[in-house]
Amino acid sequence: MSKSSDSPMPGWKKQLDTLVEHRYFTTAVIILILINAVVVGLETYPHLYSEYKSTFFAIDRILLWIFTVEIVFRLFAARTLGSFFKNSWNWFDFVIVLSGHLLAGAHFVTVLRILRVLRVFRAISVIPSLRRLVDALLLTIPALGNILLLMSIIFYIFAVTGTMLFQEVAPEYFGSLQLSLLTLFQVVTLESWASQVMRPIFEQLPWSWVYFVSFVLVGTFVVFNLFIGVIVNNVEKAENGEEEIDETKEEVKELRKEVHELKGLLKEHLDRSKNKQM
Amino acid sequence: MSKSSDSPMPGWKKQLDTLVEHRYFTTAVIILILINAVVVGLETYPHLYSEYKSTFFAIDRILLWIFTVEIVFRLFAARTLGSFFKNSWNWFDFVIVLSGHLLAGAHFVTVLRILRVLRVFRAISVIPSLRRLVDALLLTIPALGNILLLMSIIFYIFAVTGTMLFQEVAPEYFGSLQLSLLTLFQVVTLESWASQVMRPIFEQLPWSWVYFVSFVLVGTFVVFNLFIGVIVNNVEKAENGEEEIDETKEEVKELRKEVHELKGLLKEHLDRSKNKQM
Amino acid sequence: MSKSSDSPMPGWKKQLDTLVEHRYFTTAVIILILINAVVVGLETYPHLYSEYKSTFFAIDRILLWIFTVEIVFRLFAARTLGSFFKNSWNWFDFVIVLSGHLLAGAHFVTVLRILRVLRVFRAISVIPSLRRLVDALLLTIPALGNILLLMSIIFYIFAVTGTMLFQEVAPEYFGSLQLSLLTLFQVVTLESWASQVMRPIFEQLPWSWVYFVSFVLVGTFVVFNLFIGVIVNNVEKAENGEEEIDETKEEVKELRKEVHELKGLLKEHLDRSKNKQM
Amino acid sequence: MSKSSDSPMPGWKKQLDTLVEHRYFTTAVIILILINAVVVGLETYPHLYSEYKSTFFAIDRILLWIFTVEIVFRLFAARTLGSFFKNSWNWFDFVIVLSGHLLAGAHFVTVLRILRVLRVFRAISVIPSLRRLVDALLLTIPALGNILLLMSIIFYIFAVTGTMLFQEVAPEYFGSLQLSLLTLFQVVTLESWASQVMRPIFEQLPWSWVYFVSFVLVGTFVVFNLFIGVIVNNVEKAENGEEEIDETKEEVKELRKEVHELKGLLKEHLDRSKNKQM
Repeated sequence: MSKSSDSPMPGWKKQLDTLVEHRYFTTAVIILILINAVVVGLETYPHLYSEYKSTFFAIDRILLWIFTVEIVFRLFAARTLGSFFKNSWNWFDFVIVLSGHLLAGAHFVTVLRILRVLRVFRAISVIPSLRRLVDALLLTIPALGNILLLMSIIFYIFAVTGTMLFQEVAPEYFGSLQLSLLTLFQVVTLESWASQVMRPIFEQLPWSWVYFVSFVLVGTFVVFNLFIGVIVNNVEKAENGEEEIDETKEEVKELRKEVHELKGLLKEHLDRSKNKQM
Repeated sequence: MSKSSDSPMPGWKKQLDTLVEHRYFTTAVIILILINAVVVGLETYPHLYSEYKSTFFAIDRILLWIFTVEIVFRLFAARTLGSFFKNSWNWFDFVIVLSGHLLAGAHFVTVLRILRVLRVFRAISVIPSLRRLVDALLLTIPALGNILLLMSIIFYIFAVTGTMLFQEVAPEYFGSLQLSLLTLFQVVTLESWASQVMRPIFEQLPWSWVYFVSFVLVGTFVVFNLFIGVIVNNVEKAENGEEEIDETKEEVKELRKEVHELKGLLKEHLDRSKNKQM
Repeated sequence: MSKSSDSPMPGWKKQLDTLVEHRYFTTAVIILILINAVVVGLETYPHLYSEYKSTFFAIDRILLWIFTVEIVFRLFAARTLGSFFKNSWNWFDFVIVLSGHLLAGAHFVTVLRILRVLRVFRAISVIPSLRRLVDALLLTIPALGNILLLMSIIFYIFAVTGTMLFQEVAPEYFGSLQLSLLTLFQVVTLESWASQVMRPIFEQLPWSWVYFVSFVLVGTFVVFNLFIGVIVNNVEKAENGEEEIDETKEEVKELRKEVHELKGLLKEHLDRSKNKQM
Repeated sequence: MSKSSDSPMPGWKKQLDTLVEHRYFTTAVIILILINAVVVGLETYPHLYSEYKSTFFAIDRILLWIFTVEIVFRLFAARTLGSFFKNSWNWFDFVIVLSGHLLAGAHFVTVLRILRVLRVFRAISVIPSLRRLVDALLLTIPALGNILLLMSIIFYIFAVTGTMLFQEVAPEYFGSLQLSLLTLFQVVTLESWASQVMRPIFEQLPWSWVYFVSFVLVGTFVVFNLFIGVIVNNVEKAENGEEEIDETKEEVKELRKEVHELKGLLKEHLDRSKNKQM
């Protein structure tokens, strides 16, 4: 929505943009999302759902069409289609609403209902402060790429080893590679890793503690470093102290230049007055 | 209690204020709160309670009236009613004591007893260092408004989805929206999330791990960022380094101004001596 | 052991001090503590203990007497008794060894054996780097006084309330004030707080979740702030950056003074040369 | 692989080094490691393994020989044997591949298969960014030497005491010194420490809570400080602010020197002009 672009924007686009960017427009959309949230919440009560099924359906249809109109407005208010879809939040809004239409006739009632629930996420895309927060949270993830890769390698190796070693002893936890990965995720959250997962295996294979203790140590250490990465990232952002140090440094540098010039001037003067004396 | 105000304070108010602010007064109140704490503690032992019921009741009545007198003193010692009730800790003290009187005749014995227990919280309002600590802790909450809102949205969406998906499979954990919210709170504390909540559902719905793993990842990530917010807030407060950098910067700026003036003076001198020479 | 004191130290004290402070002396003591550790470890195996009971007893007697001699040496090597007992680690060593002698004839075999195990803690008092680490860890505790007091108040109030409310429903967890305190400690570590403690009560008292959720929120928030206190303390110690900022500030201040003098000199010169001209 | 060394490197070594350091070479090795990872993953499915046993065996042989050739190439590309084995990652690669050959004829099928799984770890040694990350993680460990030693002492003392006290009451958890150490590791992760470990003992020995609560407090406090050590280490590394403060300090110092010289010059001039006047 860069208005500083070259070609002039048609009048109706400007009006639409004013409307879409208006405070009341956003408030109205937030209220509609809230209504949507309440409706999907009420739908979870079976007796309400069965009794007012058609009412729920009607409200849902109305909300879907209002959201559609909203998206279309926002789409036309944007300078070009490209500038609209450059923002991933717009993509999110667009897909959520579009899939509501596409799957309308489908028979997967559960999918449709989940889709309606996901519409509540639009609260994030509509409230700017929340959007910025989520953007900030997501931005910390790429910086963690390496440690996530390391984590995956460790998980994979332990999952393969665990499946090989405990497949027959504990089929519930290590029956297949997928089950092992899920179990290792449980172990890394330290949830019942000893009481439920290790101890029954430990009773049959006394050396199995090596596997679990080493995974708990390595796993929590890496997860912990992952968390530290996020902390350090955040603390760095929060600290504008460094910037100020930079500025102070600049200031001191320029000061030094000035003092140097001063010395030059003074020397010149002294040389001249010496010459004069001679 | 701003004494630097315009209208003069009557003498008895000054005397009352001196009394109320006296070290011994505070110590006496703390001792009474301690006695109150011991009494409510002893009351939890059924055999003691049934045997000395009337004694406990008498002590409670006496303490309530002493506290009432204390509050009334503090209220009159204050400049105006407004200045007394501007402090939320005074509100807290006032409500705790008043409700003791209002509910005295009521038949909700448990409510009355809980009220007596809550009086122990007055230890916080009476000990200044504790009051400041709690004020500091509570002050970190508003800064977390956005992340708490995000948290609520995530909880609500997962609760609605969970109720929809697992209502029939695990009625104990996902039977209704309220139960789902409670279960999700349990899951976010990582307490028995796998062994008790997920695994029984997982046995019947093999795809259910997606729901739980994604909630654990998203939930703990957001909770973790909430904690980081508090840490960064605290570290920032603790760091007075930045302030000092600011001061240093000021210092350097003024220094530069002075050097600039110096250069001006010198140039002026040189120009004059040049003119003199010519 | 301040040698810079006034009165001269007798020769034998100096020699004893040299001996006691010698590298080999410390190494020998560490080795004896290690032997002590191995012996108490072996004693836990019933078949070994019953077979070699007298051997274990003999080794223990010998070790105790060697440690006694060591403490006596260190005590005499110290300038005065006061200077020896000023160090709390010396107190610890002294008490551990003395109680070994005092309880030698006693019939509380378990107490005696635990005492022998506690001697292993002497490794901390003997290895200087460990002693410094533990001193540093313990030093963080007084700074947390207020938050620990707040924690105690919260624990006490919740324990009294919990006992009052759930005494009859869950006697195992909330049967008495002591049991409630233990249960709350378990809840604050988030161990089985929902699956074991809350859910059975929740089934009978549907409003009980308020008690548990509020305690988990308040409890973990305060524990978390307690931890932050420790972190901030540590980070502050680790950061010598602030000191350097202080130094830089000093430097800039002195620089400014010098520039000020410079300006004074120059002005003086200019005034004089103006006067000369006139 | 320091090419700035004195003696000239033979031409074929240079060519080999160019090959080994080539981007495509590394990519090829990564792809082979990925294939290896997929193969060991597929082998965990019993029906696949029994059906395609010989295929798996053949692929494994081929991969082992390719890796052998790779290591030999890298070994010859290195200036000397010493420079190759100075890097511990090369040692790791060498041992992994060599043991594959040495144990080829052995009958310990499980050992062989685990060895094949460990080859996946080579992904870390081959991808430079991962290698650096793991190096950085491992570098934080030596700095924690003291706290790990303290931890061991605490674990050992509590394990010996626990075995002595609860050997007969809870043989499953405290039956022997090894079992006690494992149980304490479980307790320090706070996993089922109360519900499974303490409560059954607590029912028989009402004073046993002292042991568990004190261990949980001491244990988590030390683990927590261990974590803080890692955090502070990392934050310090991340903070290059201090360096900049250092630079600013240097800058200010030199500035002061210059101003001092300036004052010297000016004073000299003033003295001279005073003399002239006289």
